Amino acid sequence: MASRKKLANAIRALAMDAVQRANSGHPGAPMGMADIAEVLYNDFMRHNPANPEWSDRDRFVMSNGHGSMLPYSILHLSGYDVSIDDLKNFRQLYSKTPGHPEYGCAPGIETTTGPLGQGIANAVGIAIAERVLAAEFNRDDLDIVDHFTYVFMGDGCMMEGISHEACSLAGTLELGKLIAFWDDNGISIDGKVEGWFLDDTPKRFEAYGWHVIEVDGHDPDEIKIAIEAARAITAKPSLICCKTIIGFGAPNKAGSHNCHGAPLGEEEIALTRMELNWESAPFEIPGSVYKGWDHKKAGQRHEDVWKEKFAAYQEAHPELAAEFERRIQRELPQNWQEAAQAYIEEVDAAEVGKATRVSSQAAIEAFSPILPELFGGSADLGGSNGTEWSGYKPMRAESPRANYINYGVREFGMSAIMNGIVLHGGFIPFGATFLVFSDYARNAVRLAALMKIQSIFVYTHDSIGLGEDGPTHQPVEHIPTLRMIPNMQLWRPCDAVETAVSWKAAIEHRDGPSCLVFSRQNLKHQPRSAEQIEAIARGGYVLRDCDGTPDVIIIATGSEVELAAAVCESEALEGIGIRLVSMPNTARFDRQSQDYRDSVLPPEISERIVVEAAVSGAWYKYVGVDGIVIGMDTFGESAPAKELFAYFGFTASKVVEAVKSLTGSD
Amino acid sequence: MASRKKLANAIRALAMDAVQRANSGHPGAPMGMADIAEVLYNDFMRHNPANPEWSDRDRFVMSNGHGSMLPYSILHLSGYDVSIDDLKNFRQLYSKTPGHPEYGCAPGIETTTGPLGQGIANAVGIAIAERVLAAEFNRDDLDIVDHFTYVFMGDGCMMEGISHEACSLAGTLELGKLIAFWDDNGISIDGKVEGWFLDDTPKRFEAYGWHVIEVDGHDPDEIKIAIEAARAITAKPSLICCKTIIGFGAPNKAGSHNCHGAPLGEEEIALTRMELNWESAPFEIPGSVYKGWDHKKAGQRHEDVWKEKFAAYQEAHPELAAEFERRIQRELPQNWQEAAQAYIEEVDAAEVGKATRVSSQAAIEAFSPILPELFGGSADLGGSNGTEWSGYKPMRAESPRANYINYGVREFGMSAIMNGIVLHGGFIPFGATFLVFSDYARNAVRLAALMKIQSIFVYTHDSIGLGEDGPTHQPVEHIPTLRMIPNMQLWRPCDAVETAVSWKAAIEHRDGPSCLVFSRQNLKHQPRSAEQIEAIARGGYVLRDCDGTPDVIIIATGSEVELAAAVCESEALEGIGIRLVSMPNTARFDRQSQDYRDSVLPPEISERIVVEAAVSGAWYKYVGVDGIVIGMDTFGESAPAKELFAYFGFTASKVVEAVKSLTGSD
Repeated sequence: MASRKKLANAIRALAMDAVQRANSGHPGAPMGMADIAEVLYNDFMRHNPANPEWSDRDRFVMSNGHGSMLPYSILHLSGYDVSIDDLKNFRQLYSKTPGHPEYGCAPGIETTTGPLGQGIANAVGIAIAERVLAAEFNRDDLDIVDHFTYVFMGDGCMMEGISHEACSLAGTLELGKLIAFWDDNGISIDGKVEGWFLDDTPKRFEAYGWHVIEVDGHDPDEIKIAIEAARAITAKPSLICCKTIIGFGAPNKAGSHNCHGAPLGEEEIALTRMELNWESAPFEIPGSVYKGWDHKKAGQRHEDVWKEKFAAYQEAHPELAAEFERRIQRELPQNWQEAAQAYIEEVDAAEVGKATRVSSQAAIEAFSPILPELFGGSADLGGSNGTEWSGYKPMRAESPRANYINYGVREFGMSAIMNGIVLHGGFIPFGATFLVFSDYARNAVRLAALMKIQSIFVYTHDSIGLGEDGPTHQPVEHIPTLRMIPNMQLWRPCDAVETAVSWKAAIEHRDGPSCLVFSRQNLKHQPRSAEQIEAIARGGYVLRDCDGTPDVIIIATGSEVELAAAVCESEALEGIGIRLVSMPNTARFDRQSQDYRDSVLPPEISERIVVEAAVSGAWYKYVGVDGIVIGMDTFGESAPAKELFAYFGFTASKVVEAVKSLTGSD
Repeated sequence: MASRKKLANAIRALAMDAVQRANSGHPGAPMGMADIAEVLYNDFMRHNPANPEWSDRDRFVMSNGHGSMLPYSILHLSGYDVSIDDLKNFRQLYSKTPGHPEYGCAPGIETTTGPLGQGIANAVGIAIAERVLAAEFNRDDLDIVDHFTYVFMGDGCMMEGISHEACSLAGTLELGKLIAFWDDNGISIDGKVEGWFLDDTPKRFEAYGWHVIEVDGHDPDEIKIAIEAARAITAKPSLICCKTIIGFGAPNKAGSHNCHGAPLGEEEIALTRMELNWESAPFEIPGSVYKGWDHKKAGQRHEDVWKEKFAAYQEAHPELAAEFERRIQRELPQNWQEAAQAYIEEVDAAEVGKATRVSSQAAIEAFSPILPELFGGSADLGGSNGTEWSGYKPMRAESPRANYINYGVREFGMSAIMNGIVLHGGFIPFGATFLVFSDYARNAVRLAALMKIQSIFVYTHDSIGLGEDGPTHQPVEHIPTLRMIPNMQLWRPCDAVETAVSWKAAIEHRDGPSCLVFSRQNLKHQPRSAEQIEAIARGGYVLRDCDGTPDVIIIATGSEVELAAAVCESEALEGIGIRLVSMPNTARFDRQSQDYRDSVLPPEISERIVVEAAVSGAWYKYVGVDGIVIGMDTFGESAPAKELFAYFGFTASKVVEAVKSLTGSD
């Protein structure tokens, strides 16, 4: 049997060799954290390499994602479908082993990390999901949800503000099954951190209500005792502060930023081999080491034990068990389609003329009872965002049976935590703030899109319609720029019906995030035929039409649809054929067939106008260089909303003028 | 003489009455913090209402900007050019008193706040600027730079991650003249914060190395003693934790979130008047209260004392004094134009073919000696970003004579701190990170644009050219989305010459931020005439042209210019007239005369192609619906850069194909 040190050195060897081979990457962190990982995986982690999807596995997140060769090495060594060739292909096209761990590439990677600080926030979300799901489903002694969430963090994660947001909330919620390890090596890319980072980190985390332990990160016994202690403390998350040496084992580069983000070099690698007494050639692992790491049998046993428990659970609680399986398999309820459709028809019949944020709350109200996995929240704007529906039950440390989180004023933390909740499984999270503050969370929104996971971002107060709070709170560029994130579904509905459809679409869009963008102010109901209601889901459709071929097409979204509809009725435009296209979701529209798109925007009609109270540039794709975009390319102002719309030219007369200028009738 | 309580109540009355009149706003915070503000302003603040620009005034920042009626009231009461009518026009169009404090609206507002947590970061920047400027200019006992920076923070600021980033750095840098007041009222918009925010905040700040004091925020004596203590501690920033009651004085709404963000209502206001024993009508202030607040004479005296000191300084150090005045007046050195121009010519002559991030470092190297106000930094990527030029002197607590900050892994904090440094005066700050991590800092970048201040954001690794680090680190949507921020100047230069010009332009662009976007990979030198070099500053210009009227125009930016230039030489396109337009800055180009723009992009030539390794949508404004945009509407991949450019279709053959398809020659 290989010694603990030797098992850990396997990670070091694989990391330094793979980085060298790729001629890029970060050997320092894997080499520094190898001992911690070895103890964690070989003494504690409950996981099954043969089934990375087993719902009750312990989760592991590498928040300092640049150290990706650590999880890749472990996945390989412990028996996942990650071969030595996969490690040789580190950072190459089509490989399972990209530069940073990416969800969906290698089995066993629980989340995409690299942008620092977000992994710990994901882990907080995973731990929240575990806690809430356990509270909902566990019965008597049948704890079908009962696992730990482990996370590795570097100094960079500690410096990033999101670590504050996530860890403060984790402390408040007393997430006792969250155990974080801080790689306290005193080095970041610029050098020794003491010039820019002198926090007393243990004290900081105690201030958050965490249980904090300090250990030598190269002493397996200390690490083991610390993990045992952390697992025993159930009412506080634990931070194990591990004093480590970055690049441990490299005689000349260890302890310096020179081994952080670059290959060690052949010479230093040879010296490291000697230093570590590691005699195998690159990518060769001694059988005794494989044996020490192999978790296939143990992992299967773990899952089998759980399966037995689950079988008993099925017998005792067949309906709950079926519901649990549905939730874990991310299937919508059988009656979903029908119920959602019925609700849309009901909304249409009611001809609601409210703010879409209010219509959004009504949609949540309607869908939540059918969809218990809907898990809401807001970054301290619940009332304004319309997320506090009648059945909302905020999670508290003492009451984890919940369907909501008061995230506090933590937009970035919220969004990355939501991503963690999705990744855990069992929930469809939505989280809300004002649209302008999507800025604070932007990279978490991006990572949801990159991971193709179903986080639903609810953004209210979507334009100058926000009014008096002024330009700091008025989004201008946010709608077009969120649309530009690949894989993003952004909906900006114009009334209660489009709002209900957008919620339905977001709930059915399982392989990516959605942004639901709602107005502060009331918006009129738009009458539609059943076919038109059906067409909303296509992202763009003809809402009003003239007889015969239109002279001009007006495209509008959200609150500007009402304005455009009024213009269609304008006496000043009598005799001009106007088509009004509502386009709540450009990404959806772009994916329709050419035929459909041409039916909505016939290529021969180049007289086109867009009205949207947002930055204009991206709309020329639809109207061409000679089209007119009535948008907003400056910041807003502080004043009542109605005055602002007039001030910035979102008026019937401005649109009428545009129609006239395009049709030569002015 | 009015009592302290009465002086404070004037703020309460003005706040509740102005919010009531506007029928929107936040009375709770001003009413809760009135006693603190009263002591601070009437016993400590050194400022001159007649000259809000006096360089050595104490600075005050309201980080919880929704409490804007507090600073507005104080500016009015103490004698600034903010009239009672201005207060009556709170939150109205064209007023000096928008919903949140906006830099440039009312005199005495030091920064724009509202997006929570950024005010404290601005204040850290202001305190850094004070410290560094003092170290550079103060001589003997002539401390011409010597002021405090005071900042009010709410629970929201405390929850936001950026407060962690900024305050951690402030502690490390031992910013002893920074004094923050935490409005510890236990309430945020969703209600009592204990459900989502249980930090031991004093302990947290002690962990950052701050000096922490806890007081009753309604006891002027305690507040006064605390401020004295805070001022006496010179090696640590101070946090004064003030237990307060939100909406203090409102008998039924104080202490509850009901007074946070909505008018109190006429009835409650009447009761509050009785409770506070405030007998004046709305917007009427007793003479004794005005007298108690009036700071005009004292303020002039403060400035006169300073002027005497500065006169002595001028006599003793005439050159330094002149330089100080130049810096404070934000004037560039007299030799700037000439020197910068000479450098550009030198770069052109050298025909450098390096990565633009390397050329950027060379530009910093060249400009820094002429421009001592250039104040650099990086969020822990100095080597990669090319910000560590030979003369860089990082600031440390013990060595404030510096021109650089190691910001640590704190992109958002860095950007908001940079904004504070500009706002203080005396510096042109630049700060760097990878382009993709502009996401983390986006709202600070936006606020720089809204404030029209000169922060220079240096973003390197600007595309899939980043290579192996993969999609988490590869910007795709960032270039087009940063361009969409109003008032933003984004430069994406294609070689060393354009890089030098973009730096020159950013330095000369005094009334707004610039983003300088640079490549990781080497880029060839493009030959140009003197006229072409001059035209770079126009944002878009003809880099290569054919004889006669072009058949097709290719527009390219940054690294794709080299590709497009190669296509112009392609044998496969012989006989086709191709014009190549380099467009490093679309905003600049859009502001050129119609004549100039038509000369570059003649309207009659609709055969147009854009090549840019970024999201494509916004480019149709230049090429029309029938144009071709070779862009990238998916996330990247992890692989060597060259392979990625081929994989994603940034190849000569792809561009050639596009040219052929537009010219009908395929």
